Amino acid sequence: MRMYDVIKKKRDGGRLSREEIRDFIDGYVAGRIPDYQAAALCMAIYFRGMDAEETTELTLAIRDSGETLHFDGIDGLRVDKHSTGGVGDKTSLIVAPLVASLGVKVAKMSGRGLGHTGGTVDKLEAIRGFRTDLSVEEFQEIVNRTGLAIVGQSRDLAPADKLLYALRDVTATVDSIPLIASSIMGKKLAADDDGIVLDVKTGSGAFMKSQEEALELARTMVEIGRRAGKRMCALITDMDKPLGCAIGNSLEVIEAIETLRGCGPDDLTQLSVALAARMLVLAGKGNYEDCEAAVRENLANGEGLRVLAEMVRAQGGDERWIYDPSLFPQARWLERVRAPHSGVITAVDAEGYGTASLILGAGRSTKDEAIDPAAGIRLLKRVGDTVESGETVAILYTDTRPWALSAAARKLLASTLIGGEKPPERTLILAVVE
Amino acid sequence: MRMYDVIKKKRDGGRLSREEIRDFIDGYVAGRIPDYQAAALCMAIYFRGMDAEETTELTLAIRDSGETLHFDGIDGLRVDKHSTGGVGDKTSLIVAPLVASLGVKVAKMSGRGLGHTGGTVDKLEAIRGFRTDLSVEEFQEIVNRTGLAIVGQSRDLAPADKLLYALRDVTATVDSIPLIASSIMGKKLAADDDGIVLDVKTGSGAFMKSQEEALELARTMVEIGRRAGKRMCALITDMDKPLGCAIGNSLEVIEAIETLRGCGPDDLTQLSVALAARMLVLAGKGNYEDCEAAVRENLANGEGLRVLAEMVRAQGGDERWIYDPSLFPQARWLERVRAPHSGVITAVDAEGYGTASLILGAGRSTKDEAIDPAAGIRLLKRVGDTVESGETVAILYTDTRPWALSAAARKLLASTLIGGEKPPERTLILAVVE
Repeated sequence: MRMYDVIKKKRDGGRLSREEIRDFIDGYVAGRIPDYQAAALCMAIYFRGMDAEETTELTLAIRDSGETLHFDGIDGLRVDKHSTGGVGDKTSLIVAPLVASLGVKVAKMSGRGLGHTGGTVDKLEAIRGFRTDLSVEEFQEIVNRTGLAIVGQSRDLAPADKLLYALRDVTATVDSIPLIASSIMGKKLAADDDGIVLDVKTGSGAFMKSQEEALELARTMVEIGRRAGKRMCALITDMDKPLGCAIGNSLEVIEAIETLRGCGPDDLTQLSVALAARMLVLAGKGNYEDCEAAVRENLANGEGLRVLAEMVRAQGGDERWIYDPSLFPQARWLERVRAPHSGVITAVDAEGYGTASLILGAGRSTKDEAIDPAAGIRLLKRVGDTVESGETVAILYTDTRPWALSAAARKLLASTLIGGEKPPERTLILAVVE
Repeated sequence: MRMYDVIKKKRDGGRLSREEIRDFIDGYVAGRIPDYQAAALCMAIYFRGMDAEETTELTLAIRDSGETLHFDGIDGLRVDKHSTGGVGDKTSLIVAPLVASLGVKVAKMSGRGLGHTGGTVDKLEAIRGFRTDLSVEEFQEIVNRTGLAIVGQSRDLAPADKLLYALRDVTATVDSIPLIASSIMGKKLAADDDGIVLDVKTGSGAFMKSQEEALELARTMVEIGRRAGKRMCALITDMDKPLGCAIGNSLEVIEAIETLRGCGPDDLTQLSVALAARMLVLAGKGNYEDCEAAVRENLANGEGLRVLAEMVRAQGGDERWIYDPSLFPQARWLERVRAPHSGVITAVDAEGYGTASLILGAGRSTKDEAIDPAAGIRLLKRVGDTVESGETVAILYTDTRPWALSAAARKLLASTLIGGEKPPERTLILAVVE
């Protein structure tokens, strides 16, 4: 195979064969294929696309570029969920314990990633003592015992994805459905799950700005997963506003705990229940209605919270924090953001809220940055709420960057539209791809 | 400027500004912009194209990436011609002396290039003693005295083009009209001519396979030249078969001499006359018909040949070779290629003939290869000619690669279609862009 011919074939609208795709990925990871040829191919794929078979082959080649996991020591079916990422999304912390509490295993690998807040493992590390670097044996043992464990993603998982993503990021080839789908699914398929529920976000705070694109991405990923022998389902969900009222690591863990107690924000509860129920359906636990009812019951009776506490203890964390969130350390600095005039919050730019959270220290902009677990935002007013001039809209927290408070406040206000009329309610779950 | 934004803008169909284009070219030449971003931009340009203004700005940025020449020491208007390259194209050797013989200066810079045979300077170097490394003063003095001088292209001319071309060559982004046009014109505009006649080839032996593409390329280049203040004209000419009967360096010089004596092949004579006449029109020497008549007269009276001999002497060559081509060294090995059956030559693959010539040593496949001046092909039979089984179709020559004769013969025969019916005559000059 000459890489030139592969680029030209795709440029001219041809289908790449399994061998061509494998040779590209293997050669790129091995350093035999230079960045400039990979960049040209990514741009050709951006324009020409890939069919389902090509996208699946690319995904499998990415998966096979590194270690693939085999959890033979875990009993029973394993399901996982994956979100394409949104502001204030802490559903994993709620969904995983609920599903585990209903007898389905969740053996979760979670990336740290870059973004407005940390990843799921960063959030959990806000709990003192919590370890995310378990050995495979410990991990399997905890999953078998508590139904659930969450660890950081190994650096050896799908190394082709890391290389390709870094290249796409600087060559304007990120937003291509086959490239996004193979990037996400290449990593997910390296883990050893029987079923995966995808939460594909759309809206101002999501990567997919339009619902059509989100639907296409969801269908592509579901198709890839099926071809790889997984049980698959995807929800298309609204990310025009942050999910829930908390943005930031310990703030989000606390909100997840409140939700598992049955007193979380409506939108977060609704989405968490739907995701958990879909995971149970994939695991063969019955039809959607029955699964949803079971999830709601384990929200109401505290079973989900109990599994979270057990998992935290099993992974070395202090489980008392789960039952008494006041034990989480408070940020040393805070600032109230006040409404500049009276009205109704008609729209917010979720991405802008995310940026404010990043400025406060809740996220990373480069991969080696440290996270401030206490930093973040608590929203007192959300889209559709009435505000009086001078009333507090949000509280900003930071333990490390007091100098960033006013910039974050400006960003948050600039991302909040206060108008005259209450906006129509938006549907949270826009579509289901089964 | 962030290069990322430039790539994204073009990817999304936007127009690049003068500043964005300059920053790209300057940054790329300086090594600040990496190959992978340049490759992604080239692929985006491949798909999205560039309008006339963008293409002109790209051309000027390429021109300005290195030295630009100023021949203030040359009296009178200077015109040049440029061919996009074809098999057996030795028109420069005929056209330049004819134009100079009619009082218009030709100060020609010619690349060595890669391909089936050498460039014009390689061909002239087949003449013993001929120097192509003149100083600027010598060059101007010879142009003033003889009307004509031909030197090798400086390495400092348009370095951005060399870098970009090498990158495009390995990333399948060569065949993009704005990229081809800016590459050719970037170099041509670095020379100090008042007018340029372009010979854009189309057909099996040319880069532009279709006449439509050739026309688009010609129009684009004429537009760029005009915007840069040059007098411009382009011919679209047929390259479905080799031009003339000789392919190879000294063989082509000899055929050029025969043509300047008035006894060259019809197609070569016709194209040379047309190109020379167009150059004279650009120089304000009258209308096309008058200029054509003047050119034909200087073919008939040997004035063109006299100027060629003068130029050869002025540049250190042995002018006797011009008047007696038997002085050119003969290749030590030759092989006759015979018709495998009787019939009419209905078509040839000009590119295949070029490859046969390259195999024999007449051209370079890497830039540091030495050329065998005596190697090449003399065609005894051409498209439309009747051949008997066993009759000689062509003679292959090589001084350095006797072992390549049979492979070259096979290639030549495989590129020659002998059928039953005489094909329709093809027009040589397909269109004129003024």
